[in-house]
Amino acid sequence: MLDMRELAGYHETYRAELFDDVIPFWLDHSLDREKGGYFSLLERDGTVFDTDKYAWMQGREIWMFSKLCSVYGTRPEWLEAAKLGVDFMRAHGRAENGDFYFAMDREGRPLIQPYNIFSDCFMCTALAEYARVSGDAQAAEEGLAIYRRIQQRKDNPKGIWTKAVPGGRNLCAMAMPMIQMMMARELKGFVPDEELMPIIESNLELFFNRHVDRERECVFERVLPDGGHLFDVMEGRLLNPGHALENLWFVMDVAHDLGREDMVSDAAQIMLWTARRGWDERYGGLFYYQDYMGYPTDKLESQMKLWWVHAEAINAFLLAYKLTGSEEHLDWFRRLHDYSFAHFSDHAYGEWYGYLDRQGEPAFGLKGGKWKGFFHLPRMLMVCEGWLKEMMERP
Amino acid sequence: MLDMRELAGYHETYRAELFDDVIPFWLDHSLDREKGGYFSLLERDGTVFDTDKYAWMQGREIWMFSKLCSVYGTRPEWLEAAKLGVDFMRAHGRAENGDFYFAMDREGRPLIQPYNIFSDCFMCTALAEYARVSGDAQAAEEGLAIYRRIQQRKDNPKGIWTKAVPGGRNLCAMAMPMIQMMMARELKGFVPDEELMPIIESNLELFFNRHVDRERECVFERVLPDGGHLFDVMEGRLLNPGHALENLWFVMDVAHDLGREDMVSDAAQIMLWTARRGWDERYGGLFYYQDYMGYPTDKLESQMKLWWVHAEAINAFLLAYKLTGSEEHLDWFRRLHDYSFAHFSDHAYGEWYGYLDRQGEPAFGLKGGKWKGFFHLPRMLMVCEGWLKEMMERP
Repeated sequence: MLDMRELAGYHETYRAELFDDVIPFWLDHSLDREKGGYFSLLERDGTVFDTDKYAWMQGREIWMFSKLCSVYGTRPEWLEAAKLGVDFMRAHGRAENGDFYFAMDREGRPLIQPYNIFSDCFMCTALAEYARVSGDAQAAEEGLAIYRRIQQRKDNPKGIWTKAVPGGRNLCAMAMPMIQMMMARELKGFVPDEELMPIIESNLELFFNRHVDRERECVFERVLPDGGHLFDVMEGRLLNPGHALENLWFVMDVAHDLGREDMVSDAAQIMLWTARRGWDERYGGLFYYQDYMGYPTDKLESQMKLWWVHAEAINAFLLAYKLTGSEEHLDWFRRLHDYSFAHFSDHAYGEWYGYLDRQGEPAFGLKGGKWKGFFHLPRMLMVCEGWLKEMMERP
Repeated sequence: MLDMRELAGYHETYRAELFDDVIPFWLDHSLDREKGGYFSLLERDGTVFDTDKYAWMQGREIWMFSKLCSVYGTRPEWLEAAKLGVDFMRAHGRAENGDFYFAMDREGRPLIQPYNIFSDCFMCTALAEYARVSGDAQAAEEGLAIYRRIQQRKDNPKGIWTKAVPGGRNLCAMAMPMIQMMMARELKGFVPDEELMPIIESNLELFFNRHVDRERECVFERVLPDGGHLFDVMEGRLLNPGHALENLWFVMDVAHDLGREDMVSDAAQIMLWTARRGWDERYGGLFYYQDYMGYPTDKLESQMKLWWVHAEAINAFLLAYKLTGSEEHLDWFRRLHDYSFAHFSDHAYGEWYGYLDRQGEPAFGLKGGKWKGFFHLPRMLMVCEGWLKEMMERP
């Protein structure tokens, strides 16, 4: 059990990391006040080492600055930072059909076509949250329209850029049901309940009955429509512990909100399978990718230790402990906390290192990259700070 | 200088590695006698861990078995192995428009569309070499038709699957001029000289005047059409030492063949820049990717040590030594030889490990993968065996 002294200690750690080490790093280094939007490729000390602008990173940073205003009360510098991204993406982000380009250059000239629907998902939640805190009614309309278009595009998300041969192999990826859970948590009260609830129900169903394999005690990234497997090929055996744990805390949070405590304990159990299998007994930390049968994956970076995997795992186990009181989940929270704050944290310059080698040393100094922005880490710190505070205030 | 005893020692090492350790591994484990074609995803001991079939790997293995027949005289098991791939690719490899699918399943059902022109390049040289050794006249016609279609497609190689926005950023990649040099070496006497020579000339020009930067002593992967740079973004700064060295020995070999000894010494000098910059002083071995300014690249696997990088580097420095007699190139050959045979070679099961971590330990046991087949290593062993023999027989 966490006693009050420990709770207060953790709470202060998460609060301080967020407010003293992470938010200032991005406010200081990522805002492009000259051309608009955000730089996201930042070296250890914040030096911008690439000026291109990626829609995922723009959308996530707009969302995060807006969310900070929602949760902690509006601060002018946060709202202004959010607006910098919104203005840039309004001016440059969309192709003719309204979908978001994947990448633009510093000035906003489009570089990569809108082949990736997750750009739209992040911009949808970004505009919704920005609408809430800014009072910008147009942003609310834009966000809702994007959400509805995603629902139409979701079965053919890459459109004309699809490389898979139609009818070739019908493996279903977890990414789409997962981003739907992410959006569902964020859009409550924004998308009408009668529209949102069936989507939530169907994605809970997809997760628990398709991607979770109870016999094998595993969450599979890609499964056949009936939950069966293609074990002859790597893609059918791929495990991604960080992905699974991130999805599990979304699911647990949504289920708790719906009063489905059966699903909460189910998700808590599945977290344990995932963490036990994903933990590197030799050097500590969670692997990035694994093969269910222990073969190599086709990802050369499988054994690296990534910041977001550990941030999402911390979220998962703290939520599970908060909701169930399970000591085993608390142990995992402590273990993940200790590993992460010892290896990823960089108090000299702020933010966390993104990529450690298997042994736990930073493989690069970078703090921001094409896939690392102002998102997983500050979200985790904010969410955990809130949960720890709730636990401190519990009678 | 290499004296006769040393020459004979190296020669025996390369010959034995090829005939005793590498060819048997692929003959034993990669032929799918049931469904045709080749397995290429092979664990340390040869266990097939994924049954999908990739066009690059099929084409390269057909070429390699055919080439062995060309160089060492036809052996029935090599020719039969080559035919297994040719028959499979004839039956299943092509989309309606004649381009080659990127991937098929074990039975040959198409999985990934022909978005990648290099599939066609490898199948072109495969069919040409197979035609030479089998007397299959149809294969010769097929290979020539593919070659001509590649020349038409080369400025828009991904066709409808292009994700780059037209007019967005005009960086030119080295991959296309490089594969043109590879094909030019292979297709001599097969494609008429008056057709081949202008292509060779223009690709030599592209390499020396666009990708080689003499002021910075560097070979850049992506440059502006005039050889200028985009240094604000990672893609404009990317270095790939293995790619540069592979291209350099193609170029050196072609130049020597044309009697252009000025280009031979030029290429030899550029090899030294590349190897000095690419060598890991801390742990040995050549890096996979580097950033010209020392920033992180967007490739998480940048610091790994890859088998093909070292195989191509060995080729480059042995050829440079053979043609120029330079002691500095001989030193590099020795250093690369020692590192590679100590770290990649696996006499317990045959073949080389593909992927070492930065420290030089195998990150995975795999001997064959989605991008590792029967190609770089046996080609290097065969080519070096031949060059060492020539050197032994020199008066």
